[in-house]
Amino acid sequence: MEQALALAEQAYEEGEIPVGAIVVANHRIIARAYNQTERLNDPTAHAEMLALTAAFDYFGAKYLPECTLFVTLEPCVMCAGAIHWAQLGGLVYGASDDKKGYTRYHQDIPHKRTFVTSGVLEPECRALIQSFFRKMRN
Amino acid sequence: MEQALALAEQAYEEGEIPVGAIVVANHRIIARAYNQTERLNDPTAHAEMLALTAAFDYFGAKYLPECTLFVTLEPCVMCAGAIHWAQLGGLVYGASDDKKGYTRYHQDIPHKRTFVTSGVLEPECRALIQSFFRKMRN
Repeated sequence: MEQALALAEQAYEEGEIPVGAIVVANHRIIARAYNQTERLNDPTAHAEMLALTAAFDYFGAKYLPECTLFVTLEPCVMCAGAIHWAQLGGLVYGASDDKKGYTRYHQDIPHKRTFVTSGVLEPECRALIQSFFRKMRN
Repeated sequence: MEQALALAEQAYEEGEIPVGAIVVANHRIIARAYNQTERLNDPTAHAEMLALTAAFDYFGAKYLPECTLFVTLEPCVMCAGAIHWAQLGGLVYGASDDKKGYTRYHQDIPHKRTFVTSGVLEPECRALIQSFFRKMRN
């Protein structure tokens, strides 16, 4: 999660909502991404979507049951839906997202095989997001 | 919807789950796509995601309040989430999807400004999907 947080900090520096994600397989990081909705002019270019796409490329496979996605913020329904389609083995997220997080809609949007862990480095992940929105308001 | 159905038929010919989508703005088609999960080895390469990405490119904009997406099958939660982020003006779909459709999870996943219409050319859209899965089973 520290690696994902470093990516989120990079997003912050570039004026993007600071969310970072990595995909781990066999104890190795095989994909890294951060939110790029501004740079790409694409509101679907979330860290999770970009990291998953990189992981599909890496394995040349549509399903990622051996992979775990670490992301600094609770995924939205779109990203949780992508996790479902990927049949991802694990999801670990930092801060929860009361407004846009998928759990607001339904707990079971990720795949039934996806083991979900939340709250990892939660204070650090949350502080970065809050700092970003404070800066935006000023 | 006839144009979206023609794209779905193209997907069928290529061995993809037959779903087609177009994006319309000011009575003009500005994006066309069909499901390419097999060809791209990417389970998120749904017709809707590809059509929306093309529409963001076309307008150089993150939000598409003037656009309507026509798609032959009810979007999944991932695609409905993308529609939310795009603040899409309209969504028109053909066949409903009892297993993977977003309405199974929550009616309000698309943006509150997205006007949703369902059941357009429903029999034709459904017949194409059913024919595909019948062929797959044989």
